[in-house]
Amino acid sequence: MPVQFADVAAAAERLRGVATATPLLESDALNELTGARILVKAEPLQRTGSFKFRGAYNTVMALRPRAVVAFSSGNHAQGVALAARLLDIPATIVMPADAPRTKLEGTRALGAEVITYDRRTEDREAIGSEVAARTGATVIRPYDDPLIVAGQGTVGLELAEQAAARGAVLEAVTVCCGGGGLIAGCALALTHLVPGVAVHSVEPTGFDDTARSLAAGRRLGNTPGAQSLCDALLAPMPGELTFALNSRLLAGGLAVTDDEVAAAMRLAFRHLRLVVEPGGAVALAAVLTGRLPVRGRTIGVVASGGNVDAELFAQVLADA
Amino acid sequence: MPVQFADVAAAAERLRGVATATPLLESDALNELTGARILVKAEPLQRTGSFKFRGAYNTVMALRPRAVVAFSSGNHAQGVALAARLLDIPATIVMPADAPRTKLEGTRALGAEVITYDRRTEDREAIGSEVAARTGATVIRPYDDPLIVAGQGTVGLELAEQAAARGAVLEAVTVCCGGGGLIAGCALALTHLVPGVAVHSVEPTGFDDTARSLAAGRRLGNTPGAQSLCDALLAPMPGELTFALNSRLLAGGLAVTDDEVAAAMRLAFRHLRLVVEPGGAVALAAVLTGRLPVRGRTIGVVASGGNVDAELFAQVLADA
Repeated sequence: MPVQFADVAAAAERLRGVATATPLLESDALNELTGARILVKAEPLQRTGSFKFRGAYNTVMALRPRAVVAFSSGNHAQGVALAARLLDIPATIVMPADAPRTKLEGTRALGAEVITYDRRTEDREAIGSEVAARTGATVIRPYDDPLIVAGQGTVGLELAEQAAARGAVLEAVTVCCGGGGLIAGCALALTHLVPGVAVHSVEPTGFDDTARSLAAGRRLGNTPGAQSLCDALLAPMPGELTFALNSRLLAGGLAVTDDEVAAAMRLAFRHLRLVVEPGGAVALAAVLTGRLPVRGRTIGVVASGGNVDAELFAQVLADA
Repeated sequence: MPVQFADVAAAAERLRGVATATPLLESDALNELTGARILVKAEPLQRTGSFKFRGAYNTVMALRPRAVVAFSSGNHAQGVALAARLLDIPATIVMPADAPRTKLEGTRALGAEVITYDRRTEDREAIGSEVAARTGATVIRPYDDPLIVAGQGTVGLELAEQAAARGAVLEAVTVCCGGGGLIAGCALALTHLVPGVAVHSVEPTGFDDTARSLAAGRRLGNTPGAQSLCDALLAPMPGELTFALNSRLLAGGLAVTDDEVAAAMRLAFRHLRLVVEPGGAVALAAVLTGRLPVRGRTIGVVASGGNVDAELFAQVLADA
């Protein structure tokens, strides 16, 4: 394995007292609704509002570069910006001009320099590389990096420990998947700590590259032109490192529609009193739709982030 | 004191493993915005979505009646309904017909029999007494009861312990106040555990009976006819027991407007990713408005509940 459980454990040490050990939420109503025991790892309650701070801080703390640059639709952006600020390192973040406003503003508020680009006509990696070359900054990649995967894996580590502490034996876990860093790290930790657990990736319809790649046994990209509410999960194809891990560790890949994502956001609002962004709600949607059969089982669900503009959230609530 | 710290500690024992030890949330953005360290006790993440389950379970568990009846605008209703269900006791709940739909549905979903009444023309206590007389059920009062106060006080107990565990010394705490049960219990626990802490009640404008009663040194009622977004905080005057405690334990009373409450709900949405209902947001509003000066200080804030209809929440978000 190119990343080991020991790397996740090392990341947990680096993050101790810095990242939030987010709560594992359980709702009587949600359990009743699904006929299962559903345990939701609440990363919207993480610093910067998503799990991305974990991998970012783990990486910046381990490398201690003189400056950092990152490209991101917004959650990795804020994670890197806060990590850099805590370690007193200048940060430049390359973000799509149409990223959610709360993510653009949140990144700027954390003291990072934000460079926006057009997702349709410009190449964010080229812009990031140019900044790196010009300023000597180290690129903090969003997912395809061992330190990033190990940091995100602390979500799975905590999930396993918190479930065990309340006497729950996890049978399956659903985790969202963009480039695959979060789920690769989670799967490393979960399969190490919970014998027999089945870890499933969940992606938005039209961006189910990991599901199709798992089925094909090799990395496949998404067909260009698809649309999704899930701004955080639009990576074009699985990462090289993340797919090497995920192809060995995952039980399979699922996909959910925008309508199903919106329904999951409404349910999290009502029964968990948690704000979950579209990309953060796909794992819950997979459970609610029965895409993953859950009745009578104990299921872990990672809600990965809660950075969603008020306008969109209000619209999702109104569409009920 | 008619209720002692030992009663709160006994309630904590009864609630162990049953109630959720809700997390104490902290937001970099919120700290920056206020220039303070703000620690938010997140009772929307409690079972049934508010602190009310604590007092209800403590009371029903201690008394073990053959049946229970309660009157409530919705949070106490759900708390009593779940407590009764967990202990296999039939529950009848008297609720205003115009209570938030999520609260009416939530109470019914927990297996309670719901009787609705008209807040303007009918007397809920009379209806509750009639049910009690007819069915032999024990009335579980919403606030003016030692077991209820002790149960709600576990919020303050946990807040004190969680703050101490992260090295924070609480200088002041804001807590919402309807009938005064939550704040009385919290003040008992906090003043016992945190030397010198100042506990402030926060009420909606027009329903600031506790603030005026504290200033006058005797129980004063609200002027009939006032309106407020805060459906959970409309008690007509301080309870006898709760005021006996609060008049000795509180540092003072504050009030906030509906607009300030809505702004606090939006801020909790954005920076805490937490759904907070209007009545649950007054304590945060007091801090954000500077009604309580906080700059440079460490402040505890109790967010007491998150049961708000999607329509109202969407409207609050849209009004930004």
